[in-house]
Amino acid sequence: MAQQHLDPTESTAGVVTGDALAVYLRAQATEFLRALRMHRETGTSGGAEESVDAARALRRSARRISGSLHTFRPLLDADWSEEMRPELAWLSGTLGLEHAYEARLERLLLALHRLSGSSPFPAQQVSAGGSAPAAQERGNLTVGAAKAGALLDRQLTLARTRAHSTALQALGSSRFHAVADKVAVLASEVPLTTAGVSTDLRPPAGAAEERLLDAIAALPLITAGHPYNAEALVHGLSPDPAPHPQDGPWHQVRLLLRLHRYAREALSGGGLGTPSADPRMLAAGRALDRHRDAAEAAGAAAQAARTPRIAPATAYALGVLHADQRHEVEAARFEFQQSWQRQTVGAP
Amino acid sequence: MAQQHLDPTESTAGVVTGDALAVYLRAQATEFLRALRMHRETGTSGGAEESVDAARALRRSARRISGSLHTFRPLLDADWSEEMRPELAWLSGTLGLEHAYEARLERLLLALHRLSGSSPFPAQQVSAGGSAPAAQERGNLTVGAAKAGALLDRQLTLARTRAHSTALQALGSSRFHAVADKVAVLASEVPLTTAGVSTDLRPPAGAAEERLLDAIAALPLITAGHPYNAEALVHGLSPDPAPHPQDGPWHQVRLLLRLHRYAREALSGGGLGTPSADPRMLAAGRALDRHRDAAEAAGAAAQAARTPRIAPATAYALGVLHADQRHEVEAARFEFQQSWQRQTVGAP
Repeated sequence: MAQQHLDPTESTAGVVTGDALAVYLRAQATEFLRALRMHRETGTSGGAEESVDAARALRRSARRISGSLHTFRPLLDADWSEEMRPELAWLSGTLGLEHAYEARLERLLLALHRLSGSSPFPAQQVSAGGSAPAAQERGNLTVGAAKAGALLDRQLTLARTRAHSTALQALGSSRFHAVADKVAVLASEVPLTTAGVSTDLRPPAGAAEERLLDAIAALPLITAGHPYNAEALVHGLSPDPAPHPQDGPWHQVRLLLRLHRYAREALSGGGLGTPSADPRMLAAGRALDRHRDAAEAAGAAAQAARTPRIAPATAYALGVLHADQRHEVEAARFEFQQSWQRQTVGAP
Repeated sequence: MAQQHLDPTESTAGVVTGDALAVYLRAQATEFLRALRMHRETGTSGGAEESVDAARALRRSARRISGSLHTFRPLLDADWSEEMRPELAWLSGTLGLEHAYEARLERLLLALHRLSGSSPFPAQQVSAGGSAPAAQERGNLTVGAAKAGALLDRQLTLARTRAHSTALQALGSSRFHAVADKVAVLASEVPLTTAGVSTDLRPPAGAAEERLLDAIAALPLITAGHPYNAEALVHGLSPDPAPHPQDGPWHQVRLLLRLHRYAREALSGGGLGTPSADPRMLAAGRALDRHRDAAEAAGAAAQAARTPRIAPATAYALGVLHADQRHEVEAARFEFQQSWQRQTVGAP
């Protein structure tokens, strides 16, 4: 597929209409079906890595379809869109959990090793799953760090196993088959409204960008741009079980940045093969992914510390780990601020 | 006293000889005796704040005399210097401990409040001493933070009380009286060597500066200049009870910066009244003080966590606190790097 990189904000760029959206949605639907086939094949032949790749590809296209339905709502059949979006959200949420728990455990065990001054272990030992390699590796850790690692391993492996079962059940459910059928129809026929075919995509894409810019403007970027501002750990010992409402606006920007990226993909006819988003946008997105991952890892450490009857040394290690991950949160905000500032300064 | 600001690196500056050193040492010795008189008066009339000020002034002049003896060793009677220095070091070390424990407790309780998201309490409530106000303030904290605060309060208040007794004993000892007698002689008669009177102060002062610059050049300043490098918390969970050999070179630079400052004071005939050091040098010194204070506070939190039979919630709070202070250590290194870089860039 030839990729055209059109800047939607550039007035000399040619009008891109609903036709291009249809091309984009068909391509994403085809990708969804391809990933689904791959997932079914690897699910029976048992290739763990391929299965993970297939699930990731499924989620990837589900997010893009869902995002496009949201951004370009006026161009599409309203009833169809409204039915489709929550189903896609359910699907990518369900399929994403297993990987999220696995990545969280890996992040926390790596941090424990860093904090213990021991050499980090190869990541595949953990992602290959099971407690055995993790337990071996804990030989290098102090008692507290080792016990904290074992506790996190137990809790997050259990959560991952449950998420795996839930995902398998979901993929076999009639609810999933209904979504898959709809995506199969979408791969050949996009339900554009009569006017939608010739409607300019740029105003709704511009609106998505505006929502992003407004949300970014509301972020505390001046604070974030001062290194070691110690903001992310404020309330680190708060009695509130969800003590970080300060994270919310950043998570929201992460989602809006995604929607903006998908809208640009639809306009440029891309989204498959080489990514069409500009590298600075990707850097900002990576910083927000890191922000989200560190925030959730910090939460998991705090939650593990509330396990009854743990040893003080375990609790101490979990406290250090929690604070470490909250500082990762702060570092990610600084990283975002830096990449975004460069972007704004560099803009014409 | 008229203050001349001579830059020892400037070749057009007039030669400053041992005469100026004698003036400087006499002034510091006089200041020492004045502070000692003040300390004895306030010690009997019981003005706590004045007593703290007097002890600080005593240490201040003791450090300056000791530092000058070191830097300008060749100009001074060798036997006298060698006898004097360890006694002055013993004195300022002994007198400094009480204040150090007090400041450490205050730093840690303030951090606990910040981490709990409660409003900070007025610092004088803590420095006025006693457990009562601290216990009141802990009403705002969570159980873990409150227990951690109580534990630190108990341990550091005990250490402070012991340091206070030790300081009082020291001030009444014959060892102290011998030092005071020597300082009294120094106030009128500085034991310069025959050649010392006319010896140029600039070469030994330059050598002190060289030692400082060499030590700074050996610091990992490139890493320190990258915010959120996460270096200071490496080994944060190490089994080693003194897990931070990485702090050593920074502490050493702090001492060398002091010696350099005192040498400049001697050359400029200053050191009393308005400080003669340039503001950037002071900023670098402040960053290194913060580095030292945070490193010691982090150590105190880690040590408190090793208290037998503490609750897991207490240990968790101490872990968060330890990591928080180690990040303060990292922030202080960044601050030093920034101030030093400005200094180097701004130099002619």
